[in-house]
Amino acid sequence: MKSWFEYNWQVRDEWFEVYSQLSTEELIKERTGGVGSILKTFFHIADVELSWIRAIEGLEDWEPLYEDYQTLEAVKDLSDGCRKQILGILSNADVSKESTVVCVSWRNEPLVYGEVLRHVIAHEIHHIGQFSVWAKELDIKRVSANFMDRGLGQTLLQEKANRTIL
Amino acid sequence: MKSWFEYNWQVRDEWFEVYSQLSTEELIKERTGGVGSILKTFFHIADVELSWIRAIEGLEDWEPLYEDYQTLEAVKDLSDGCRKQILGILSNADVSKESTVVCVSWRNEPLVYGEVLRHVIAHEIHHIGQFSVWAKELDIKRVSANFMDRGLGQTLLQEKANRTIL
Repeated sequence: MKSWFEYNWQVRDEWFEVYSQLSTEELIKERTGGVGSILKTFFHIADVELSWIRAIEGLEDWEPLYEDYQTLEAVKDLSDGCRKQILGILSNADVSKESTVVCVSWRNEPLVYGEVLRHVIAHEIHHIGQFSVWAKELDIKRVSANFMDRGLGQTLLQEKANRTIL
Repeated sequence: MKSWFEYNWQVRDEWFEVYSQLSTEELIKERTGGVGSILKTFFHIADVELSWIRAIEGLEDWEPLYEDYQTLEAVKDLSDGCRKQILGILSNADVSKESTVVCVSWRNEPLVYGEVLRHVIAHEIHHIGQFSVWAKELDIKRVSANFMDRGLGQTLLQEKANRTIL
């Protein structure tokens, strides 16, 4: 899983960089698709990722409030903090966990641990696709969505020898 | 990998269904982001997926021409055909292949087999994110991008016991 998370985090940081050229007004402007604005989408990606990872590890829900993160720097700090937590959590999780059944407070049906990991991975890539449409509309640089050319082949090879998820 | 491909194929078919309500004019209309039109994006997703899978298996390149697929039904047929080929190819590929080094004709640098699989998976999810923006603009139903609630937890559990990639 490590290479997938690394992919998403590299791409996310490149989008933070690209969108840092926009004014706060542009960042919070409501747009078509996604969860609304660019800022809210960044917040949503970081929030959803950490919520699910904490939930499948049985940790209590940690609910940041969007209202507390009203600049790109604040959301980037939040994203960095979430990532640190996830690294800590998943670095202790053995890959055999992937096929265990888990329950989360907001759903009645049980889920498979690896299913949730894939859910959060796909969730971010999906929203990044929306970023690319908005960047095109704004006529600014678009970040490559390519998985290759990011050194992730090497990550993948190391992953094989590693029993932890991250 | 099976659950990832199943996810993408389920979501793709649901988008074929949603977009089948549009006129051909709407489907071929140039839009902001992605590779242009809705029809071209469907074609591009199917084409890119099969090209990479064939390439890493050392099969000769098979290059469908967009001009030959000018209706949604034609592109859906192409997509179904590509998927059949991929099922055949990957069902014979042992998971140990994931960490092998592969070369493709259009690149100088070698790649890792599993890196290419992840590339085509992320590629489709990325473009689907664009579909969702366009659907919102057109004020029509949007397909869920959720990985869960698709029966893929079960696929994942079966996958563990299976030595082939698909």
